[in-house]
Amino acid sequence: MEKLFVVKIGGNVIDDESKLASFLQDFSGIKARKILVHGGGKTATRVGETMGIQQQLIDGRRITDAETLKVVTMVYAGYINKNIVAALQANNCNAIGLTGADANMMIAHKRTNPGMDYGFVGDIDIVNTALIENLLEKDITLVFAPLTHDQKGTLLNTNADTIAREIANSMGSLYDVSLIYCFEWSGVMMDTNDNNSVVQKITPSLYAELKACKIISAGMIPKIDNAFAALNNGVKDVVIGNAGDLNQLIFQQAGSSVVHE
Amino acid sequence: MEKLFVVKIGGNVIDDESKLASFLQDFSGIKARKILVHGGGKTATRVGETMGIQQQLIDGRRITDAETLKVVTMVYAGYINKNIVAALQANNCNAIGLTGADANMMIAHKRTNPGMDYGFVGDIDIVNTALIENLLEKDITLVFAPLTHDQKGTLLNTNADTIAREIANSMGSLYDVSLIYCFEWSGVMMDTNDNNSVVQKITPSLYAELKACKIISAGMIPKIDNAFAALNNGVKDVVIGNAGDLNQLIFQQAGSSVVHE
Repeated sequence: MEKLFVVKIGGNVIDDESKLASFLQDFSGIKARKILVHGGGKTATRVGETMGIQQQLIDGRRITDAETLKVVTMVYAGYINKNIVAALQANNCNAIGLTGADANMMIAHKRTNPGMDYGFVGDIDIVNTALIENLLEKDITLVFAPLTHDQKGTLLNTNADTIAREIANSMGSLYDVSLIYCFEWSGVMMDTNDNNSVVQKITPSLYAELKACKIISAGMIPKIDNAFAALNNGVKDVVIGNAGDLNQLIFQQAGSSVVHE
Repeated sequence: MEKLFVVKIGGNVIDDESKLASFLQDFSGIKARKILVHGGGKTATRVGETMGIQQQLIDGRRITDAETLKVVTMVYAGYINKNIVAALQANNCNAIGLTGADANMMIAHKRTNPGMDYGFVGDIDIVNTALIENLLEKDITLVFAPLTHDQKGTLLNTNADTIAREIANSMGSLYDVSLIYCFEWSGVMMDTNDNNSVVQKITPSLYAELKACKIISAGMIPKIDNAFAALNNGVKDVVIGNAGDLNQLIFQQAGSSVVHE
């Protein structure tokens, strides 16, 4: 099967113009089919603040109310997505920027949670793989903003890590898929102050130990859970590491590889 | 040749939620290949004001400076484009929302004008028809926001009427193309206070007369110039009329048809 890289780039790189430019240059250089999923970064928060839209928090969790949905639609699908696409084009990478609503790529439902309304937040039901494959085969790189839709006219804010995993899983029967989560750390680290403490291979048993000893932080747990879920659903390998190391991450020469025993 | 409708919808309909919903329902019902090009509306101005970004005007013309480009990218490519796509999906119209940067659809250059810098405004050089045709043949409806790019990483604000014409012209060798400009008037009118005064057929000689008598307003002239330019470049017919009459406009049963003698 042909190789496909599904790369997720997080907010902190998106917020840093020169890091983002360098990352997009490296990404453009990957000589294989590829999909980029980007997060939101602080731009949405900043734009929301400038527009006087208060970020709703309930029990410390962000709520996507109607006004926030407007802002994230503008910032994620408009500003961030289209500037990434234009930058990739400048690097000779023929990119197309999409949300889950476009060509019905990702259909979701509004999350229902007893006792807690997250607002316009989507959980993905279906990824339409046929057009994704069709575009990839035309040497087009898909760039997804973290938004889906419910097929009833409503856009839904959707976690970018989850989108990357769902796409990677869905494409697993068509391609030899590597899923790469890029963020600000060099990988999963034993000691976040020591760049040499990256755990190169994370097995389920090691993961359980690191969690038990509280070496893995709360923010990292959903990422690794996502990674194992992807591995169990047809993704060949999952690597977590620093966006600046992309050229090494794709060969598993940097970051942390999440693997079965 | 198969039929293709290229429909341009203007700002005033986009600003009116119920008119837009009704228009999108009608548009979804068109049983043919179709492309929608949308303008900006007042949302960009409102968002810009809310964010404290001053609209630059030189000699009464809007200038797209860097801050304005950010706002229009957010509003046109994000908020307006994705909400239109989601609404079309809810009407069982499989839409994909794009700018000229996406899949390199429309390549433009920054307008250069001696003595006058319009800022980040683009004039289109190339429409890449192959992927447009490919998507249309998959029964996907393309929805274009009025933005192009220069292939060097810069997005460019681009007139939506011109985008509609350029796309219609480019597709003229592949489809039997009708270009429909929808706006707030019932067509080109002899008397803007009288809805029964619509000029049903505008020939070049009648156009010259109406311009000479100043019956055609300044704002209408570029639209009709655009229409004649399209007719001279492979578009089969051009109709200008009210967005609410879309079902009649596609059969030339309402509005003004721009025709050769």
